[in-house]
Amino acid sequence: MARYLRNTALGGGVLALALAVAGPASAEVPGETQFVFNTFSFLVHGFLVMWMAAGFAMLESGLVRTKNTAAICLKNIALYSTAGILYYLIGYSLMYVDVSGFIGSFSLFYNPSEAELALLNADEATPELVAAATEGGYSVASDWFFQMVFVATAASIVSGTLAERIKVWPFLIFVVVLTGILYPIQGSWTWGGGWLAEMGFSDFAGSTIVHSVGGWAALTGAIILGPRKGKYGPDGRVNAMPGANLPLATLGTFVLWFGWFGFNGGSQLALGSGLDAIAMSIVYVNTNLGAAAGVVAALVVSQLMFKKIDLTFVLNGAIAGLVAITAGPDLQNHAMALVVGGIGGALAVIAIPLFDKLRIDDVVGAISAHLVAGVWGTLAVGIFGGGDLVVQVIGIAAVGAFMVVASGAFWLLLKATVGLRVSDEDEELGLDKSELGMEAYPEFGTGSQAI
Amino acid sequence: MARYLRNTALGGGVLALALAVAGPASAEVPGETQFVFNTFSFLVHGFLVMWMAAGFAMLESGLVRTKNTAAICLKNIALYSTAGILYYLIGYSLMYVDVSGFIGSFSLFYNPSEAELALLNADEATPELVAAATEGGYSVASDWFFQMVFVATAASIVSGTLAERIKVWPFLIFVVVLTGILYPIQGSWTWGGGWLAEMGFSDFAGSTIVHSVGGWAALTGAIILGPRKGKYGPDGRVNAMPGANLPLATLGTFVLWFGWFGFNGGSQLALGSGLDAIAMSIVYVNTNLGAAAGVVAALVVSQLMFKKIDLTFVLNGAIAGLVAITAGPDLQNHAMALVVGGIGGALAVIAIPLFDKLRIDDVVGAISAHLVAGVWGTLAVGIFGGGDLVVQVIGIAAVGAFMVVASGAFWLLLKATVGLRVSDEDEELGLDKSELGMEAYPEFGTGSQAI
Amino acid sequence: MARYLRNTALGGGVLALALAVAGPASAEVPGETQFVFNTFSFLVHGFLVMWMAAGFAMLESGLVRTKNTAAICLKNIALYSTAGILYYLIGYSLMYVDVSGFIGSFSLFYNPSEAELALLNADEATPELVAAATEGGYSVASDWFFQMVFVATAASIVSGTLAERIKVWPFLIFVVVLTGILYPIQGSWTWGGGWLAEMGFSDFAGSTIVHSVGGWAALTGAIILGPRKGKYGPDGRVNAMPGANLPLATLGTFVLWFGWFGFNGGSQLALGSGLDAIAMSIVYVNTNLGAAAGVVAALVVSQLMFKKIDLTFVLNGAIAGLVAITAGPDLQNHAMALVVGGIGGALAVIAIPLFDKLRIDDVVGAISAHLVAGVWGTLAVGIFGGGDLVVQVIGIAAVGAFMVVASGAFWLLLKATVGLRVSDEDEELGLDKSELGMEAYPEFGTGSQAI
Repeated sequence: MARYLRNTALGGGVLALALAVAGPASAEVPGETQFVFNTFSFLVHGFLVMWMAAGFAMLESGLVRTKNTAAICLKNIALYSTAGILYYLIGYSLMYVDVSGFIGSFSLFYNPSEAELALLNADEATPELVAAATEGGYSVASDWFFQMVFVATAASIVSGTLAERIKVWPFLIFVVVLTGILYPIQGSWTWGGGWLAEMGFSDFAGSTIVHSVGGWAALTGAIILGPRKGKYGPDGRVNAMPGANLPLATLGTFVLWFGWFGFNGGSQLALGSGLDAIAMSIVYVNTNLGAAAGVVAALVVSQLMFKKIDLTFVLNGAIAGLVAITAGPDLQNHAMALVVGGIGGALAVIAIPLFDKLRIDDVVGAISAHLVAGVWGTLAVGIFGGGDLVVQVIGIAAVGAFMVVASGAFWLLLKATVGLRVSDEDEELGLDKSELGMEAYPEFGTGSQAI
Repeated sequence: MARYLRNTALGGGVLALALAVAGPASAEVPGETQFVFNTFSFLVHGFLVMWMAAGFAMLESGLVRTKNTAAICLKNIALYSTAGILYYLIGYSLMYVDVSGFIGSFSLFYNPSEAELALLNADEATPELVAAATEGGYSVASDWFFQMVFVATAASIVSGTLAERIKVWPFLIFVVVLTGILYPIQGSWTWGGGWLAEMGFSDFAGSTIVHSVGGWAALTGAIILGPRKGKYGPDGRVNAMPGANLPLATLGTFVLWFGWFGFNGGSQLALGSGLDAIAMSIVYVNTNLGAAAGVVAALVVSQLMFKKIDLTFVLNGAIAGLVAITAGPDLQNHAMALVVGGIGGALAVIAIPLFDKLRIDDVVGAISAHLVAGVWGTLAVGIFGGGDLVVQVIGIAAVGAFMVVASGAFWLLLKATVGLRVSDEDEELGLDKSELGMEAYPEFGTGSQAI
Repeated sequence: MARYLRNTALGGGVLALALAVAGPASAEVPGETQFVFNTFSFLVHGFLVMWMAAGFAMLESGLVRTKNTAAICLKNIALYSTAGILYYLIGYSLMYVDVSGFIGSFSLFYNPSEAELALLNADEATPELVAAATEGGYSVASDWFFQMVFVATAASIVSGTLAERIKVWPFLIFVVVLTGILYPIQGSWTWGGGWLAEMGFSDFAGSTIVHSVGGWAALTGAIILGPRKGKYGPDGRVNAMPGANLPLATLGTFVLWFGWFGFNGGSQLALGSGLDAIAMSIVYVNTNLGAAAGVVAALVVSQLMFKKIDLTFVLNGAIAGLVAITAGPDLQNHAMALVVGGIGGALAVIAIPLFDKLRIDDVVGAISAHLVAGVWGTLAVGIFGGGDLVVQVIGIAAVGAFMVVASGAFWLLLKATVGLRVSDEDEELGLDKSELGMEAYPEFGTGSQAI
């Protein structure tokens, strides 16, 4: 049973052994202590990733116009909630339970912590109960929590791209499918121990498995939904529709950066040995350097390309640097982290106007920051990180093909049935008034009359 | 001496024993390691709960009108500060030191970490000094920190309900009494090992002890203070006074959700064994599912009742889901967490208009989210969680009666002496100008002239 | 080789020994477990300090006018990125590697985790490799991460003071020098084990080494850059230029407070023993009490001096309380923490108008909160904390003299070459439009036309 293959192949054992060589046997981390460390790492890093949901909410709130701000807030808190429930209902078992190549098992309300609850409820802690509850070396409930916040991240990426025109309920139905079915299926291929894992595809914390997945779903959605009214003029002109609250967008980016220490650091998946602690520390350093390089690259490219330093490009540069380093933050050379993140940041700045040329309207730049940089970061593992470049390409392409087809089909189904897009009048009025019956900033200036 | 009864009855020992059966004796968590784990859990979860103070500040800033925004920011940072100082001055000893049924001991500047400081200062760490400093299995300073952020949470609940009309200084005087005296006295009944603990009242992290306490104080305050001018028309009409900055309110809700992992997770009160780590992980999972269900329930109820999805209802649904699951997040069945949180979220949405019908003006919906859902969550432990329903009702009623009488009396005393409410002209002008002499958003649109 | 002297002189060993006396030998924290605890403490507390960068960004965003808001956001994310890269490029080695009295060694791309990477990459974990990787008792990569976020904090202080008139690129060039050279050199004197450490200068988490350093750089910058146009009338009048978004400033202050538990708590530098856990817990408690006292002192002083409670003064009171307690949060008496923080908060409120009298234009009050309170806190260690007052004065003066001369010289160099200040027209227009070509709040009211 390939229950959980997103791990580090018992890396922890190496140093424990080594320290036993170097010092007295009692110097090792005892077994139950390892269990507590591993579990607490999932909880701490998990709450950091949960906090990224707030980061996406603030980033997107800051980059939409006032008349669509309350709606994007609503979508973000609703998608995080939906993702968690759906991953509990069906997603986790599809991704991690008895994965047979291309999919796990379908099991409603699957509870990974059943053995743990049995132990908690037992009158006596028999060796059998203890062994069942502790066999993985960490609490499976803590692991579930950590995995759940990742699926929410994938969904968060989609909401920003499709803002200002998609209806609330159809969007949430898509989130149900994305987080309950699509994400878990492709996730099972690698992290669940499926066919891509067997080929050796390497994606430490999910440049492809999380970020490109969200990016592909956003891309197909943007194409099928179409651009916002007035975004692209008949003469090829691109009309700027500037975000209403840039400090909030900045805050959101900082939240993401902060949370990313959980995203990448926690993906070490263990803290029960000195070696794991070392590896996790290196992940933290590379994550920070990758993001910093993304910012600096975006600053420079923005200055050179546009003669101005556009704040929103710089924010996307930070995110793209983070996405790029996510596939291989265990990189054994910090200078390479600067290169990987810097190229990621530069690519995002270059890609944003290209998507506009293609008339693919991405309100917050998420496709550039998550999909383009995610593909780059996954390739970079093949170039710098010791992974096989051909296998990396296969992994990227397989996940991309699956997501384009599956999410595209589902977007089309939604469009043909309940409809995806608000009416032209409602779009003009803004989603806050038309869908929610309220205003996000009722006292500020021009409010929803603007633009 | 019932110094600290808010614990898990030595649960940790069970698995330590069990692992000793299952493997070599050296696999257990050693004693000093347990001490570090328990202490670090208090610190990490404590800083998460501290962060909830920022969440309340943002939630309330977003839900008041611009002309009262700076004042609510001031109240929030001042109440957090006041709570911490008062809990140090008298509150902690009233709640946790030598509790004799209904109250602890009165001891100014009581320092729980005296034995720890004696050890730190000693030239030699004698066995007696070590034993005194480590007898509880955790640093008492870390425990103090964790308890202190809880009392601040209770006070934070009050400020939102009474916003836009209560004067700053009288409000802070009330916070002095609430956090130094009222909260600690009722807290001693259960968490201090007093009469409710002896009866078996069960409130894991404080649906009743923290949230309903803040809610009762808010309710009595709202009744005695009266509604905002113009909120209720003579014809029974309820005038909407929409919040000025909904993204901030959304941010605040996310902060609360994030911090709640500390609130509930840390209330496991130990991390020194595999069993504690497992139990804590289950608390995290249930906390997240409860909140998610609160959101979804609020979405659905709001859509059905009002034909629109009101963002502020959904935010309160999240909070109510969290409050509801707080009494029993150690629930041994994740699906039940969805039920408890979902009912909590639905109740909040239903309760908000009911309080308006009663002309009880709660600016942010805190009474619905904290008191109503807190009562529900405490009852739910009796229904689903193994607690005794009659005892739960007794606990809810006793705390409620005490808080209504004591906080009501103190509100009336303040009203009769220093006065509680700003003048009609000052209320019209807004508290920012009248009490602080400033504007929160001096450049944004209509500013304090609005509404 | 004085590689890393910012530590607690093996304090951890005391309790480990003591517990060995008190209980069975197996109760001690094993060596590898200590390694994991120490490392995880650096990571957790490090991410909290990283988050302070967001706090500064929000504080400053809230306290500038709308027309300069996007620019201050940009400066904050860019300075954090620049600081991290420069500290990697040269700063860390200047501060911590082979410090000989006044400076460490110059070594481009110095990688402190080389021995760790060698172990990770080795086929076999030989005792020599393990010993080299674990000799410090913590992962040096985690230590690097923790040190790096401190240097970013120093740079964050500068941006607020100089807001609304300094050009983006020259500011970032200054950050390069500050974080790559100036901060590391003076840091080597104490934390690197240089001459101030040898004299016994005591600065637990950096009231002087971080906060006064940022404050001195801000002060020299403010003098050389000059005040904003119109800030000071010819008749000695001080024109208020109120911040545009006070809830954001409040949020920023809460973020700083939250992050400060990492700043001070992590500066215990170890968590591998019960004694370290106890000492860290006391640091948390004192940090919180110091900040709370700063708030209350600022409330009272503001009310007495100005007859109104100015929110921005209260926010600066919180920060000043935190800065003041930072030099000695290991204070062995919690009541003294109230005194130190309270005096810090009062000093900040008193200092802010004094700097205005001197026509030193500090947009956010950072010089008062970080430099004045930082000096006070460092002196307080000599008064209350057991440090030598004369040595404390020498340390303050030496760091101050170095920073005034070095940063002053570099500001003048920048002024004479690339120029520091935007043109009068650009300042009138606002830096968002002139430097970035955008608006932070394009739909809100008067926007950049204001004031």
